[in-house]
Amino acid sequence: MNIRLASRSDEDGIWEIFRAVIAPGDTYVFDSGMSREEAMAYWFGPGAHTYVAENDGRIVGSYLFKANQPALGSHVANAAFMVSPSARGLGVGRRMGEHCLDEARRSGFRSMQFNFVVSTNAAAVRLWQQLGFKIVGTLPGAFRHSQLGFVDAYVMFRTLGAETENDIESSGSTQFG
Amino acid sequence: MNIRLASRSDEDGIWEIFRAVIAPGDTYVFDSGMSREEAMAYWFGPGAHTYVAENDGRIVGSYLFKANQPALGSHVANAAFMVSPSARGLGVGRRMGEHCLDEARRSGFRSMQFNFVVSTNAAAVRLWQQLGFKIVGTLPGAFRHSQLGFVDAYVMFRTLGAETENDIESSGSTQFG
Repeated sequence: MNIRLASRSDEDGIWEIFRAVIAPGDTYVFDSGMSREEAMAYWFGPGAHTYVAENDGRIVGSYLFKANQPALGSHVANAAFMVSPSARGLGVGRRMGEHCLDEARRSGFRSMQFNFVVSTNAAAVRLWQQLGFKIVGTLPGAFRHSQLGFVDAYVMFRTLGAETENDIESSGSTQFG
Repeated sequence: MNIRLASRSDEDGIWEIFRAVIAPGDTYVFDSGMSREEAMAYWFGPGAHTYVAENDGRIVGSYLFKANQPALGSHVANAAFMVSPSARGLGVGRRMGEHCLDEARRSGFRSMQFNFVVSTNAAAVRLWQQLGFKIVGTLPGAFRHSQLGFVDAYVMFRTLGAETENDIESSGSTQFG
């Protein structure tokens, strides 16, 4: 798997994934009827560093990071990730997550914040915890899940400085597992 | 004091307050060198309901509320408030806060979230707690305070349904205090 900076010529592949990810209404706030134009305006928005993950020349995932706030809050990055439903379980999300942490650190960000992780998206919550994020806030009923109705969303956060205990645990499980 | 919907003809008064509020770099993330054009693009941004508080025909404060997220998160409002430094201590913030809760409820929002209350802004934290908000998240070092360096920011949240215990306490203190 190769992760590289995205260009606008990757839009076809990214949009295919974006549309498939938002369709069920279970992980992202976006309306499933969102237009390609709106989606790409967000994914390649002002200040966004956008990447794609390729496998055998096919785009299997994409992510972006950017400042979560302007000026006096711009040292905290925000990021968003999407994996093709057809590529789930292959570790694409984890590889992109690790890549994103490195790239954001290299860009000078001090920490990273997810504003809205749907609490019922157990795979995402677990992955981010394994990558060193902690749940620092719970937004009661903030997500209207298409199947489950109103469910909580989490704010997740980690610093990008030295390795955290979670990093050590997770690299430990790679060494010994 | 009169609170009414703002129009673009209120921009002179709003910008005077906006500029004064962001100048010290102690409560909002905005750069103190932010242009009037950028500031007004935010304050009258897409989907924003923007109000001004007037006293003797002079604008002494302004606030806005809007959806905090699109589509499946659009039942949660976000809001921002600014009070003229020359009108502090007159209860302008509290009056605008109460007004905002009513208007957001009337507009169909189920709850309200502040994404970034600077933890050292004790007056704001106390006011929002008195108006029924709870700290539901702490963002470590997320604000670069001009005097204090990196300080935490809070995520604060309340539902807009029935009266909360805090509402009852605060109206109680008005009745008996």
